[in-house]
Amino acid sequence: MSDKTLMLGAFQTFGLGGAWRLPANTSVDFLQLDHWVTMAKRLDQAGVDFLFFADDYSYPVLDGRVIDVAIEKAVLFPRGDPSTILSALALVTERLGLVVTSSTTVEKPQMLAKRLATLDHLSKGRIGWNVVTGSGQNASSKLMGEKMIAHDDRYAVADEHVNLTMKLWEGSWEDDALKVDKENGIYADPSKVHEIEHDGPFFKAHGLLTVPPSPQRTPVLFQAGTSPRGRDLAARYAEAVFVAAEVDMMATQIADIKARAEQFGRSADAIKFMPAGTFIVAETEAEARALRERMVGYQTLEGAAAAYAFFTGLDLASMDLDKPLATTKTEQGRTNVERFSGENGKPAPTVRQILDEFRRNGVMGQPFIGTPEQVVDQAEAVIETTGADGFLVQPDPTGGYDDFIDLVMPEMRRRGLLTEAPSGPTLRERIFGEGQARLPHDHPGTAYIAATPVAVG
Amino acid sequence: MSDKTLMLGAFQTFGLGGAWRLPANTSVDFLQLDHWVTMAKRLDQAGVDFLFFADDYSYPVLDGRVIDVAIEKAVLFPRGDPSTILSALALVTERLGLVVTSSTTVEKPQMLAKRLATLDHLSKGRIGWNVVTGSGQNASSKLMGEKMIAHDDRYAVADEHVNLTMKLWEGSWEDDALKVDKENGIYADPSKVHEIEHDGPFFKAHGLLTVPPSPQRTPVLFQAGTSPRGRDLAARYAEAVFVAAEVDMMATQIADIKARAEQFGRSADAIKFMPAGTFIVAETEAEARALRERMVGYQTLEGAAAAYAFFTGLDLASMDLDKPLATTKTEQGRTNVERFSGENGKPAPTVRQILDEFRRNGVMGQPFIGTPEQVVDQAEAVIETTGADGFLVQPDPTGGYDDFIDLVMPEMRRRGLLTEAPSGPTLRERIFGEGQARLPHDHPGTAYIAATPVAVG
Repeated sequence: MSDKTLMLGAFQTFGLGGAWRLPANTSVDFLQLDHWVTMAKRLDQAGVDFLFFADDYSYPVLDGRVIDVAIEKAVLFPRGDPSTILSALALVTERLGLVVTSSTTVEKPQMLAKRLATLDHLSKGRIGWNVVTGSGQNASSKLMGEKMIAHDDRYAVADEHVNLTMKLWEGSWEDDALKVDKENGIYADPSKVHEIEHDGPFFKAHGLLTVPPSPQRTPVLFQAGTSPRGRDLAARYAEAVFVAAEVDMMATQIADIKARAEQFGRSADAIKFMPAGTFIVAETEAEARALRERMVGYQTLEGAAAAYAFFTGLDLASMDLDKPLATTKTEQGRTNVERFSGENGKPAPTVRQILDEFRRNGVMGQPFIGTPEQVVDQAEAVIETTGADGFLVQPDPTGGYDDFIDLVMPEMRRRGLLTEAPSGPTLRERIFGEGQARLPHDHPGTAYIAATPVAVG
Repeated sequence: MSDKTLMLGAFQTFGLGGAWRLPANTSVDFLQLDHWVTMAKRLDQAGVDFLFFADDYSYPVLDGRVIDVAIEKAVLFPRGDPSTILSALALVTERLGLVVTSSTTVEKPQMLAKRLATLDHLSKGRIGWNVVTGSGQNASSKLMGEKMIAHDDRYAVADEHVNLTMKLWEGSWEDDALKVDKENGIYADPSKVHEIEHDGPFFKAHGLLTVPPSPQRTPVLFQAGTSPRGRDLAARYAEAVFVAAEVDMMATQIADIKARAEQFGRSADAIKFMPAGTFIVAETEAEARALRERMVGYQTLEGAAAAYAFFTGLDLASMDLDKPLATTKTEQGRTNVERFSGENGKPAPTVRQILDEFRRNGVMGQPFIGTPEQVVDQAEAVIETTGADGFLVQPDPTGGYDDFIDLVMPEMRRRGLLTEAPSGPTLRERIFGEGQARLPHDHPGTAYIAATPVAVG
């Protein structure tokens, strides 16, 4: 075991958790401020590094219609807008990072830049942006009244979107543009505030980010999605990558993204890798296993098929249950097609096996189950095998993190796996160390940093 | 004086106030959470009905370039995103309404619907949407990389946008669709959740609002903009209208919008009218007048020209100072062109007079200046002349509302002008009375309310 300490994020959607039916599960309160305030305070005080909100404009659809069972059983539905809650959470927490998802096929770069720059100010530099490309295109493109964008094109859109957004954040204001000089009536130096000029195939922009420079400028860039195009996007721009698959597949993905990043001139430790971590923990292994089975018991094969349709667009119910996937062709997310296609060197499972895997584990890979000692043993093994840097922790069966905080973190701390004094105050410093509030020098976004040309001799 | 009580809103931009240079002015802290938390708590406790955030993606531009003086003097620049702060303010207040501006030419209806529905939940029904059409098109269309939309077309876009957004809010979920039945594992009844079908000239949407029904469904609809097309939009949809002009012009505008609303089948009191109210108040009239002159002293003619360019697209500096407007043709906002064009039956002022009016009063009309008794006398006269329902109160010279709350509101209360026990808990009930949380029956948005057809024998 290396002596590195683990980074911990808390994974949430702004909706119901898979275990919402458990009597003690509180995720049905997701539209109440208090629900999030209580959770965020707890995470902050416990020393979890950040709260991460997945999001999507999509929901499970087949043949162009929402799947009834998704509404009835709350499968990847409903969803509120997590960007709306961040200022309240910034207010009640001291150091917790706040990571929010925004899709590059839905939100305009100019709007996202203004919104996240404002939030980066309000939180004093604690914002992260999880860049997604909109894998749920079959639903969201219809909702938005737009043509569905093919998988690889979505990554070209994402690449340009991220670049334009970084231009706005890094290039609009020079570091010393802001004066706030009441005496002389000078708010900012116009010669140090620059209009961005961008003319790309997907986006055009000529103008200003109207928000003065925030502590991090570019929020910490998160990414998920591990198709070849997704890995390429991660290797170019991501500072933290969320992975979720079987352990050996995660190891391959992480090694591949690291190698690609180095090809792009980024350092080997420029990206932190965060596997999904589902901790089902109790005083005894038997209790933990019983809890686990109770949770799985709430999941139906119909719900699993709806979830699979959400992530891939494929209709498992229309396929032969005893054969592998009848087609692996999709223009939606490929991560969960390639995972089960036999293309990764593993034998392709049958549709029945895929449904059962989705029913039990969804997209989050194998859970850790047992006593605190056992789950931390299992988690340490994942870190060792994959070279990952920590976990994006899935909520407890209750929807929050009380078990994780009360039972798992003390065991991690006992083993020296957690930092005692995280650096800050910004999220990027918390992840990469004191003084690193801005993008590092080997990040492509630094090319856009605004500076007045210096006349040379 | 009628016996009606006054509605009070607090007007803010998420940026600097015009008096930011005053040593005591705190608006330079607009990117700090505490600044807004303190202000919102004070307004809530004082009994102000709502906090209103104007917003725009625009800034002063001429000939396609940002105007330097706007950056230097902070003229309608900088700007953060006010939608980000609302959850923090909902958390620290009990009853204060929270009204946010979103432009129908910038934000997609589907995104706005999700965002404001989430906020309406988090605030327990205290959200209002100020519908603007994007009058600052010369800057924002370039920033967004889009073609500038002509003035009248913008209103056609706005009309369709508002209708689609109301469809999503009112039509996606029937009142009894949500079950949250843990025992039987039924979150919602799929037969009572409906996909919206919309195919218009400007927007298409086929899909769901993924947010369960919020307390108000459609947030309270605010509108400003008093061109003929703007009045038409207000008369059709608005529940509260912000007006700012000379008193007799406001009276004409209000009467006209009321008459149009009645033509559209809405009741005479379906719309509340809120003139801008700038209260410059002190213990003596002389002190108030001195304060006023000090504030005006901070404003320059250059800044006034930049502000005029922002609102109208017209370049006063290029015109003869001693003649009326050289052109009244603009595809940007017309409110402040028509105001000075002589088309309203008043003699057209010279460019010099327009600049001086803009330097002194901007777009907010005549301030009320004097002792508490004097300013409330002046305010009452405006209510009487115009038939308005209250004021959208401009910030004190300090950027907040301490003077207004400590000096003006007690005088209003003494005269019985303020409600002692506002109804609630939603903003619509606060404005229109107990039990009126949803759109009233004569509002066109009610046509979209989802209901399962009842089979008739």
